[in-house]
Amino acid sequence: MTSDVTIGVCYYPEHWPEAMWADDAKRMRAAGISRVRIGEFAWSRFEPDPGHLDLDWLGRAIDTLHAQGLGVILGTPTATPPKWLVDKMPDMLAVGDDGRVRGFGSRRHYCFSHAGYRRECARIVRALAERFGKHPGVVAWQTDNEYGCHNTVRSYSESAKLGFRHWLKARYGTVQALNEAWGNVFWSMEYRSFDEIDLPTGAVTETSPPHRVDFDRYSSDQVREFNRVQTEIIRALSPGRDIMHNFMTFHVDFDHYDAMEDMDVATWDSYPLGSLDVFPGEAAHKAAYARTGDPDMQAFHHDLYRGTGRGRFGIMEQQPGPVNWASYNTDAAPGLVRLWGMEGFAHGAEMVSYFRWRQAPFAQEQFHAALNRPDNAPDRAYFEVRELSRDLAALGALGAAAPAKVAIVHSYEAHWFLREQPQGRNFSYIEQVFSLYRALRRLGLDIDIVGPEAPLSGYALVLLPSTPYVPPRLAASLDAFEGTLLVMPRSGSRTASHRIPDNLAPGPLAAKLGIKVTRVESFRSYSAVPVLYDNQQAWFDRWREFVEGEAVVVAQTGDGQAALTRKDRAWYLAGFPDAGFLDRLVARLAGEAGIETQALPRGLRSRRRGAHRYFFNYGPEPVDVSDFAGGAFVLGSAALGVGGVAVTREER
Amino acid sequence: MTSDVTIGVCYYPEHWPEAMWADDAKRMRAAGISRVRIGEFAWSRFEPDPGHLDLDWLGRAIDTLHAQGLGVILGTPTATPPKWLVDKMPDMLAVGDDGRVRGFGSRRHYCFSHAGYRRECARIVRALAERFGKHPGVVAWQTDNEYGCHNTVRSYSESAKLGFRHWLKARYGTVQALNEAWGNVFWSMEYRSFDEIDLPTGAVTETSPPHRVDFDRYSSDQVREFNRVQTEIIRALSPGRDIMHNFMTFHVDFDHYDAMEDMDVATWDSYPLGSLDVFPGEAAHKAAYARTGDPDMQAFHHDLYRGTGRGRFGIMEQQPGPVNWASYNTDAAPGLVRLWGMEGFAHGAEMVSYFRWRQAPFAQEQFHAALNRPDNAPDRAYFEVRELSRDLAALGALGAAAPAKVAIVHSYEAHWFLREQPQGRNFSYIEQVFSLYRALRRLGLDIDIVGPEAPLSGYALVLLPSTPYVPPRLAASLDAFEGTLLVMPRSGSRTASHRIPDNLAPGPLAAKLGIKVTRVESFRSYSAVPVLYDNQQAWFDRWREFVEGEAVVVAQTGDGQAALTRKDRAWYLAGFPDAGFLDRLVARLAGEAGIETQALPRGLRSRRRGAHRYFFNYGPEPVDVSDFAGGAFVLGSAALGVGGVAVTREER
Amino acid sequence: MTSDVTIGVCYYPEHWPEAMWADDAKRMRAAGISRVRIGEFAWSRFEPDPGHLDLDWLGRAIDTLHAQGLGVILGTPTATPPKWLVDKMPDMLAVGDDGRVRGFGSRRHYCFSHAGYRRECARIVRALAERFGKHPGVVAWQTDNEYGCHNTVRSYSESAKLGFRHWLKARYGTVQALNEAWGNVFWSMEYRSFDEIDLPTGAVTETSPPHRVDFDRYSSDQVREFNRVQTEIIRALSPGRDIMHNFMTFHVDFDHYDAMEDMDVATWDSYPLGSLDVFPGEAAHKAAYARTGDPDMQAFHHDLYRGTGRGRFGIMEQQPGPVNWASYNTDAAPGLVRLWGMEGFAHGAEMVSYFRWRQAPFAQEQFHAALNRPDNAPDRAYFEVRELSRDLAALGALGAAAPAKVAIVHSYEAHWFLREQPQGRNFSYIEQVFSLYRALRRLGLDIDIVGPEAPLSGYALVLLPSTPYVPPRLAASLDAFEGTLLVMPRSGSRTASHRIPDNLAPGPLAAKLGIKVTRVESFRSYSAVPVLYDNQQAWFDRWREFVEGEAVVVAQTGDGQAALTRKDRAWYLAGFPDAGFLDRLVARLAGEAGIETQALPRGLRSRRRGAHRYFFNYGPEPVDVSDFAGGAFVLGSAALGVGGVAVTREER
Repeated sequence: MTSDVTIGVCYYPEHWPEAMWADDAKRMRAAGISRVRIGEFAWSRFEPDPGHLDLDWLGRAIDTLHAQGLGVILGTPTATPPKWLVDKMPDMLAVGDDGRVRGFGSRRHYCFSHAGYRRECARIVRALAERFGKHPGVVAWQTDNEYGCHNTVRSYSESAKLGFRHWLKARYGTVQALNEAWGNVFWSMEYRSFDEIDLPTGAVTETSPPHRVDFDRYSSDQVREFNRVQTEIIRALSPGRDIMHNFMTFHVDFDHYDAMEDMDVATWDSYPLGSLDVFPGEAAHKAAYARTGDPDMQAFHHDLYRGTGRGRFGIMEQQPGPVNWASYNTDAAPGLVRLWGMEGFAHGAEMVSYFRWRQAPFAQEQFHAALNRPDNAPDRAYFEVRELSRDLAALGALGAAAPAKVAIVHSYEAHWFLREQPQGRNFSYIEQVFSLYRALRRLGLDIDIVGPEAPLSGYALVLLPSTPYVPPRLAASLDAFEGTLLVMPRSGSRTASHRIPDNLAPGPLAAKLGIKVTRVESFRSYSAVPVLYDNQQAWFDRWREFVEGEAVVVAQTGDGQAALTRKDRAWYLAGFPDAGFLDRLVARLAGEAGIETQALPRGLRSRRRGAHRYFFNYGPEPVDVSDFAGGAFVLGSAALGVGGVAVTREER
Repeated sequence: MTSDVTIGVCYYPEHWPEAMWADDAKRMRAAGISRVRIGEFAWSRFEPDPGHLDLDWLGRAIDTLHAQGLGVILGTPTATPPKWLVDKMPDMLAVGDDGRVRGFGSRRHYCFSHAGYRRECARIVRALAERFGKHPGVVAWQTDNEYGCHNTVRSYSESAKLGFRHWLKARYGTVQALNEAWGNVFWSMEYRSFDEIDLPTGAVTETSPPHRVDFDRYSSDQVREFNRVQTEIIRALSPGRDIMHNFMTFHVDFDHYDAMEDMDVATWDSYPLGSLDVFPGEAAHKAAYARTGDPDMQAFHHDLYRGTGRGRFGIMEQQPGPVNWASYNTDAAPGLVRLWGMEGFAHGAEMVSYFRWRQAPFAQEQFHAALNRPDNAPDRAYFEVRELSRDLAALGALGAAAPAKVAIVHSYEAHWFLREQPQGRNFSYIEQVFSLYRALRRLGLDIDIVGPEAPLSGYALVLLPSTPYVPPRLAASLDAFEGTLLVMPRSGSRTASHRIPDNLAPGPLAAKLGIKVTRVESFRSYSAVPVLYDNQQAWFDRWREFVEGEAVVVAQTGDGQAALTRKDRAWYLAGFPDAGFLDRLVARLAGEAGIETQALPRGLRSRRRGAHRYFFNYGPEPVDVSDFAGGAFVLGSAALGVGGVAVTREER
Repeated sequence: MTSDVTIGVCYYPEHWPEAMWADDAKRMRAAGISRVRIGEFAWSRFEPDPGHLDLDWLGRAIDTLHAQGLGVILGTPTATPPKWLVDKMPDMLAVGDDGRVRGFGSRRHYCFSHAGYRRECARIVRALAERFGKHPGVVAWQTDNEYGCHNTVRSYSESAKLGFRHWLKARYGTVQALNEAWGNVFWSMEYRSFDEIDLPTGAVTETSPPHRVDFDRYSSDQVREFNRVQTEIIRALSPGRDIMHNFMTFHVDFDHYDAMEDMDVATWDSYPLGSLDVFPGEAAHKAAYARTGDPDMQAFHHDLYRGTGRGRFGIMEQQPGPVNWASYNTDAAPGLVRLWGMEGFAHGAEMVSYFRWRQAPFAQEQFHAALNRPDNAPDRAYFEVRELSRDLAALGALGAAAPAKVAIVHSYEAHWFLREQPQGRNFSYIEQVFSLYRALRRLGLDIDIVGPEAPLSGYALVLLPSTPYVPPRLAASLDAFEGTLLVMPRSGSRTASHRIPDNLAPGPLAAKLGIKVTRVESFRSYSAVPVLYDNQQAWFDRWREFVEGEAVVVAQTGDGQAALTRKDRAWYLAGFPDAGFLDRLVARLAGEAGIETQALPRGLRSRRRGAHRYFFNYGPEPVDVSDFAGGAFVLGSAALGVGGVAVTREER
């Protein structure tokens, strides 16, 4: 019973003397590694001078790895065009919303809209694919690297401006239609031709939300088109190889579902400690998990990208210890490097790849830990990865991720709508989605995070986070959904063109929910609105709505307004709940939907895959998981130490 | 006995199908509305293409309103030049102090100094005035909209630079005189000609305060000149109509007294909740009044603009519910929409106009509430406005605002001086003026806020906030003033050219006050200086001065310096007092001036107009006003609920 | 026994009518002043029009001062080029890292790299030196003013870019060598020629640390070269006069040791209250010392610049009362103006010069106090300076600063390395150096602060703050050092090219310390790592390292790692200690080094010079210094009041 998953590592042969390569490959193999990502960022070595390709060294590197049975994931180097290329076409650089060119000297210095740069990318990708596309050692491709990192999706360049005008013309046909759709009569913003339209930046005060939402859509489309230039070449020249991209944490600037339509496996870069440090959160929470990572953040992205990859996903870069890019860079507690990897597999990953093989002693990331130290001694992560590979061997084939009974419907467009017109500064779409996820997962549930076009009929419980624009297909599938449904506030409050619908919110969901939203308010936490729910005090702490309609009022605010309504099995929450309120509500809905739950201790989390259930202890104390485990332990035991992993064989 | 005041509304016929207009007008009338502001922001509809005017639709709108007996306030559309005009003369755009052009895409995208844009404004205003100036339905004009909103008074454009040089030449005659006045020998900042002088931005460190103060004056003058281009045309072509402008909250970037010399009625835009959210204040205070607004902020502006308008003022835009532009946008508590309107009338307003008739379902302000919802159902505000109109009908003619015994002398120039050289970051002129106002108003007093040129002889008590430059006319009227006078620190500390006067502070007030200021210090609150006042502990919490002279020392600091002095009836406070200190001092001075006071409960406020006294409860609890009311209740009763209004007929 | 030190004052004759000069000079003399700095900032008066010099007035000013026996320190005016010069060569202006030109209107508006401006400076300095270089009244020169003030060392101009390329070519020879040194293979940052290299700004994300460190070095070199243009002219034309520059507080943007090689006396500008306000610190600490200044900040700079000046140092500008440039500008408590001056002398100053003679009633600094008020009445500082001069007369010759037994090795380059790659945002080199200094000084110790090239053999105890790159000469002198040595973390962790050394940290100090650093982490204070030291709880609160090796482990972290090691007398601290930990450690090391210590009360500090020991009370309460004083009081007494100074004659 061999393993159906792989362990990988990111490797930069160009950083090291060729004499080290063979030993590196051998030691990778010894650690249980079978996948090696190489090549991304190496354009200045692929093409040291304009038009003079040098791919021989890459061939030798691939051969060396292949000789040890390692499968290469070949990265395209388009995230780091060399200086000579930038000097040749300086207008390929992106421009910030402050009007300043974003220059050479780090990475991602290009504008997605620039046709000339797309041609250069096609040229270098074709050269790589022609040479290595059918090499037996090349098992997959990664396009570019971390699209959108460093806030690079939206560029305010001349190329983007012209492209946007073209895109608008295609979308609206006539400028009159655009004026009508955007409501440009307001403040005399009407245009007489598409050539009058600028990018939505640099105005005296707020630009029009539909203008910005359309620019968000346009920019997202450019990422997909940019990527497709590469995938089409690779498809043609490297048959049978998976195409992947490495997505990021809480990144919402382009529509990943859309981009994934041209690829096979959704991978992501998991940096639990760096991400905990840089994303918003309360100090006490960050302190508690400073050396383990948030107990839900990794799982959230596993479930998110499993959905994005239509079931196929992996981790392309897994944090191996301290990183270099957070404001503060803590060490990982012992065992966590293994735990994070195993958690990825528990959620269905087909690969967990660690970043990177050996710590670079130079340049920007020299503080980034690796499996090996800069002096080539194996570091702690090396041993934890080796232990993980032995765990996998012991478990055998892992099977498929267990089907979930609960789904959260997730949408990039919803984020853009709420970002462009938040109305209250503390209203964050992605934070809300994550809070819904966390509330469900504390109950021991397996969760699917699905896109707005995914079928919902198989679920017992569906949660729709605040989704201002509910497109027709989603409206239809929600309408047809027969399970328990929770709709969060602001859903259906806007049309595709970011207008208030004629029938007010929730727009197309009005019949399903039996309500109409007549007024909204946002506020700071000190102006929270009290809610009485199940005879307990609860709060709307950022947002609340006034609703009317035929739905049954299940809970009321302190001033007698409807706070929670239901019409049959369709529930509507007329505000942004505090965490305790959300926990209780979600537990109740799960109960109504007939889903069994377990209230897990603080730092304990679990997931099912194949015949197994996996337990992970993120907390500061050992935990006894006997009460939660439904089967015999095949890895670890009921006494789960700090940073510990246990696996049971479920009886079902 | 008919009402001598009106209720108005802001209306955008161009936003709605013409078929709705007649019903809108009818329902306005039914709500007791008699004034309708229209037209501002509609340039792209007045002139869809360069030179092609289309004013017919506006004529039909005016006719429709007029047919219902509604009087139109016609706005000039110059705050929103259309895109074609901007493209035709791109240098009409303002430039920020960061050197970046402030472009099209929202509103107020113009530089006040640009001659070409002034010509375009004259052209469109003339077209409107020629067509509608004598229309019987047009009862008044509003020029532009909210001059200075979005920090647009000062522009760092080429036009502004050339204009400033010209202005300086007119002011100083020779560059030698300017060098001397500004003290340019300091740091070799001397100029050899006016053509060498740049705008005061972009230097390595702080530019010279007199340079900046003169640029503040220049910029203020441009607002007046820009406005005058319009008022002269309207005067000529629309005889007998009032000219108004809608001023703002705590806005001090141009001299409103100056601009008002060309107009008839000072109106302002009152957004109690949005303003509470965006202006500085302590969290506990903001929390207490989050859904009512600050109990003094509206009244302050009523009294300020009543003075600005030489007795004639109104509210052009009154908040009707949640707005869209604050960081957080709370709902108004029930009753407040009525309360705010009645408070405006109590302070002497001749009109209270609500913004806006119907909530726009598109563009930037779609979250801004209105009297009617986007689906045209009347919203809560509609009913409160209707109630207000019934209240007015019951009260009959309101009469004139009661004359006040107390005046605060307010100066825009004082703000500029203190902004350009604050010396301590927490020293805010407008905050101080407001704190003086609040201390007086807590005592139940009616207050006048007057400009630096106003006569003072009629008052029993005059407060002069920190006024660095005291111009000759003000110095003379203070010198001649025989009532009780309180002068705040820093007054008289600078000359017109922002120099320290030869006799040191308080400069021209030295004889009146009998002191000389020999040293000053600013500090954070943790370095506050203790003061013993009336055997109670008090504090200077931002600023203190060392003074010497013949005046009597009434209170001393902990280190034995004079803290409060008096010479006859002229008092000087040698520091910035904490709120409790100020309350006690102001009460004492009122007593010495023979003014009767009442210590009002926390959220209760009052004002007298004509034969009536009005009470307003901003607080979180009901209040019994029996102890304060001096007459019979003609509206409401002594038991004043939350958000409640009561009116008594005063016996005098 | 005449005094061997002088009191000076900064004076601007060009700011005042010539009729006042003689009286000013006379009153200076009467106050005990014998040095007067003039001339810096007066370019627009030296050369009112291009090429038309007017130095006669300066000659008369020098003559007037000289006639009273005052020695003139003549400042070169190069910090304030006049407007006509800037207009003649606008590209002489510096450019900020935001790409914006830093223009005229204040001071320091020039780019150090600009050759044309250097020529203009040579011209004006030569004119001054030719005319006054041998004037008997001119006793010294000050070049420019406060190099680097307002963040002006690094300029991102075209001149700087071209200069940097040239500098890099000189340093690396070939671009291949540069690519290798910087590790440019990372992210395809490789260059094909020096002409491809831009300045390290404006990139999409972080530029390469070696790129930035080299730009820091380049920029520092430009300051020295710029200054040398002037010193060479002055040396040639003004023989026998000292050349000085006035350095600043906590300023680390250029290598002061390097620049001082061309000068004679290191002076600095001491603003205790302004500096306390603007530099980071806890509120409680700032509150306690708001009107006295930090008890160690002045002393730190005295000792720093005494080392920088190879024993010769002074204060060029001493705060005389409130200043104008801090966020808040408190008054000095009575006595402090005298105390600060005497403390300078106690630490070895040969001159203490006050800024400024008379408060300017105009321009940027009109709030800056002086010895005289703007109305020419003597201010409090005048009397305190006169008292100081009488104290000096009473003490007679002060002798040389006492030799210290403790040295801190201080390096500008170390600051640059840690700034360009902090890895944890709270890791500040200069803050650490200062915390080491404070811990030592609380023990009553005299301390030397020495540069990285200074000999160490004379000290009993040496502290090496975190010094990433330890150059060969420093490595050798540390290796040879036989006293007690404490090395702080991160020392030796980088090569000259900002790479991790092949043998890992501490690189060249590995043998001396007997350790290897295998892993590091940074963190916020809430993730502090507990350390058990001497059976007491201590903390690493920002940084910790994992070390291995032959050294003895003296203290361990809570998770069993080495926290403090020693090999013979060489100690290594594997983390950033909290203040209490550092205090205890430093006391122990002093004990081991055979140095006697005294735990001084909170605000009391002392220093030895010649035969005297000086005591200063910065604290809020009187102190009895009997227990600390080892001799008879020659000034003051054992009962040291707040702000008090006492001097004893030491028996040794």
